[in-house]
Amino acid sequence: MSELMRTQDIALRARAEKVVPSGMWGHLHAAKLPEAYPQFFKRGEGGILWDVDGNRYVDFMCSWGPNLLGHHHPEVEEAAERQRRQGDCLNGPGEVMVELAELVVDTIGHADWTLFQKNGTDATTTCVTVARAATGKRKILVAKGAYHGAVPWCSPSLLGVTAEDRAHLIYYIFNDIQTLEAAVREAGDDLAAIVVSAYRHDLGFDQELPTQDFARAARRLADAGNAALILDEVRAGFRLDMAGSWEPLGVRPDLAAWSKAIANGYALSAVTGRDWLRKAASQVFVTGSFWAGAVSMAAAVATLNVVRRDNVPARLARLGQMLRDGLETRSRQFGVSIRQSGPAQMPAVLFDDDPDFSKGSAFCNAALAKGVYFHPKHNMFLCAAHTQADIATALEAAEHGFAAVAALRDSA
Amino acid sequence: MSELMRTQDIALRARAEKVVPSGMWGHLHAAKLPEAYPQFFKRGEGGILWDVDGNRYVDFMCSWGPNLLGHHHPEVEEAAERQRRQGDCLNGPGEVMVELAELVVDTIGHADWTLFQKNGTDATTTCVTVARAATGKRKILVAKGAYHGAVPWCSPSLLGVTAEDRAHLIYYIFNDIQTLEAAVREAGDDLAAIVVSAYRHDLGFDQELPTQDFARAARRLADAGNAALILDEVRAGFRLDMAGSWEPLGVRPDLAAWSKAIANGYALSAVTGRDWLRKAASQVFVTGSFWAGAVSMAAAVATLNVVRRDNVPARLARLGQMLRDGLETRSRQFGVSIRQSGPAQMPAVLFDDDPDFSKGSAFCNAALAKGVYFHPKHNMFLCAAHTQADIATALEAAEHGFAAVAALRDSA
Repeated sequence: MSELMRTQDIALRARAEKVVPSGMWGHLHAAKLPEAYPQFFKRGEGGILWDVDGNRYVDFMCSWGPNLLGHHHPEVEEAAERQRRQGDCLNGPGEVMVELAELVVDTIGHADWTLFQKNGTDATTTCVTVARAATGKRKILVAKGAYHGAVPWCSPSLLGVTAEDRAHLIYYIFNDIQTLEAAVREAGDDLAAIVVSAYRHDLGFDQELPTQDFARAARRLADAGNAALILDEVRAGFRLDMAGSWEPLGVRPDLAAWSKAIANGYALSAVTGRDWLRKAASQVFVTGSFWAGAVSMAAAVATLNVVRRDNVPARLARLGQMLRDGLETRSRQFGVSIRQSGPAQMPAVLFDDDPDFSKGSAFCNAALAKGVYFHPKHNMFLCAAHTQADIATALEAAEHGFAAVAALRDSA
Repeated sequence: MSELMRTQDIALRARAEKVVPSGMWGHLHAAKLPEAYPQFFKRGEGGILWDVDGNRYVDFMCSWGPNLLGHHHPEVEEAAERQRRQGDCLNGPGEVMVELAELVVDTIGHADWTLFQKNGTDATTTCVTVARAATGKRKILVAKGAYHGAVPWCSPSLLGVTAEDRAHLIYYIFNDIQTLEAAVREAGDDLAAIVVSAYRHDLGFDQELPTQDFARAARRLADAGNAALILDEVRAGFRLDMAGSWEPLGVRPDLAAWSKAIANGYALSAVTGRDWLRKAASQVFVTGSFWAGAVSMAAAVATLNVVRRDNVPARLARLGQMLRDGLETRSRQFGVSIRQSGPAQMPAVLFDDDPDFSKGSAFCNAALAKGVYFHPKHNMFLCAAHTQADIATALEAAEHGFAAVAALRDSA
C-alpha cells in the first residue's frame, strides 16, 4: 500500500467524525470498503478519479453508477452551463422539461409518459404509490434481498423501521417463477404491483440476469392480477439497453424507475409509465423543492442524446468484456479461482471460498495501490470514457491483486 | 391580463400534456394557481423571473423557498463553479462536505452533527427514522394539517397511501398544548418523537407563529417521554433566524430537517441533531446516489457564509415589513379587508370572506399582469436580492390587485 498517500484523507476523516455521525453515511462510507480505500475525493475526469491526497485511480465504480459518459463530458457540461446561465430552480420548469420528457418517451420502449424527481428512491416509491392509486390495491411483491432504496418501506436495514412500513410487502426469489406465483397467490385480490430489478444485483452475491421465462411470467402474472409490473432501472438503466433493460427479453413493464446515469452525475430521477397509469400518476401527490430544476434536465437531454448517438451500452459491453476476459486469463495464471457475473457493463467479481471477502479485499487493496479502483462485493460500472488503455491498466493492477490473493493462500 | 404574452406557455403546456401526466406534477403545477399564471419559466436573476414568453415578474415565491439570496448570486455561483471544475458526483464526498458540516454545526444552535441529502422529504423522513432507532419506540406526533413532505407517511394526499403508512402517527393541533398533551398520553410508552414545524404555515390558512408556551411544552413533553423533538425547518430555515427558527424562543430541538434555502437553489437538504442521537444516526441506513454531490455543498457553504455575514434574516424582515405595511395601507384605501400573517420574511395574505379564494385570485391575476408574482393561498418568500424598488413595484401592482377585488365586490 506504500504507493498511496493518505495524509489528507486521514485528517479529513478525523474532522468529519466530529460533525457527521461516524464521519459519513450510506453506501459511500469508506468503512464498508477495504482498508486502503480513501473516503474523500478531489477530482474526476472521464473515467479517472483523484482522491484528496492526489492519488489517481482508473475508476470502476463510476460514482456507483451516475458517471456514465465520463466526468466533465463536454456535451453534457455545455448543455448544463447553457441552462445554468438562464436559470435552474425557478417557480416552475423550463422548456427543457418538455424536451427531456419527449426524449425519454421516445427512447424508453414502454414509456407513454414520464415525470422527474431527484433520488432513485423517489422514483421507486412513486412507482409503488402510483400502482396502488391506480389499482386500489395494496400488496407489493419484491424479490428477497433486492435493493430498491433507503426509506422505511424498502431499506436494507430494519433499524428505525416499523413492521407496518413493510406490512404489504410479499417476497419472492428473483428468477424463481414458483416463488413468484406463490407470492401472487398470497396477495390474492389485493395485488397492486410486482417489483423487479433489471437483473439480480444483490451485494455480495453472484449477479444473475433474468431468464426470459421469469420475465414473461412476471408480465403474465401482473396482467392476470390486474397489477402493475414495476421495473427498477435505477442501477442498470442506460447501461444495458437504451430502450430499457428488459427490451431484449421482449417484456415491457408498466412503470419503471430511473436515476443514477440519467444525467451523467447531475441529481435526477424519473418515473416512466404506460397510459393506463397516467391518470393515477396525475392524481397522487409527489413533489420536491428541486424536482423542476432545469440544469439537471438539460444535462439529461445531452446525456441521453449521446447514449443514443454513440450506442453507449454497446461500447460499455465491449470494454467490459475486455476487462472480463483479461481478468479470467490472469486469475488462471495465478491459480486463483474467481466467479465473474452480471452484464459485462456492470461486472461483479467474487472469489471462490471467500466467505468473509478477505480475498476480494486483498485483491482490491493491491489493485488500488496500483491505481485502479475496484469493489470487492458490489457490482462495478464501466463508463464510456474508459479506454482500452484504462482496461490494460486495470489488468496490470489486477495481476498485483491476484498475486496478493495467491500470497494469502500460500501463507495460509 | 392583456399585458401578458402566453403563446409559448400555451404551446409548451400542450406538448407537456402528452408526455407528463396532466402536464406537471406537485406544488409547481400551474393548475393550482390563478388562470393568468404561467407554467414554464425561462430565466431568473436576483429576485426577478421571466417566463417562457419573456414576461418579467418581481417574484415573491422565490422558487417556493430555495431562492434565498437571489438567482445567480455571484458568491454562490463562483463557489459552485470552482467545485464543478474539480468534480461533483464522485465515489465519495469532497473536502467541502467537512467544511459544510463544520459550518452547519457552528451555525445551527442545537446541532452537534449533520448529514446531507437531496429533498426536504429525505430530511424529515430521516429525522423520524433516527428518532425511532434511538428510542426503540414508534409513535410520531404531527400537527394536523402540517406539511412534512410528499411520501406515504406524510403526504397531504391519501391516494396510493395505505393505512399502515400512517399507523403510528398521532395528531395534535399546532400551538394547542392540551391536544399535544393528549397525543403524548395516547402514545403512552411508545413515543418516539414530536414533530413541529418552525411555525404553522398551512396552505390557505392564516399563518401562526409558535407561542413560547407551546414551544416549551413541546420540549418538556419530549424530554418527559424520552422522545426526540424534531423541528421541520425545511420551509422556514435560514429566513427567520440563522441559528434556527426556535432560537428566539429559547427552545432547541433534538433533530431538525433543512432544505430549500440551504444552497440557494442547488438541490440539498440536511439533518442536524444532538449528541444523544449521533449513534442512531450512524446506524440507520439512509443514502442516495447524489447525496455526496460536492457542487451543491460548495453552494451551501457560500450561501450560509453570506447569510451569516449579511444577516440575511434581518434584511428579509425589513423588506417584508415594508411590503406588509404597504399592503395594509393600500388595502384600506380600496376598502378591501385583508389578513396578513406569518413572519414578514414569509408573508401570507388572505382576504376576508373569501372561502373559494376568488378575491385572492383576482388580486394575484391583476398583480401578475403588472409584473408581480404573488400567491393567493400559500405563504410567500422574500429573498435578499429584493430591493426597495422591487417592493415599490409590488405595491403598485397590489393597487391594481386591490382594485380588481373591489370591482368584484362592486359587481356582486
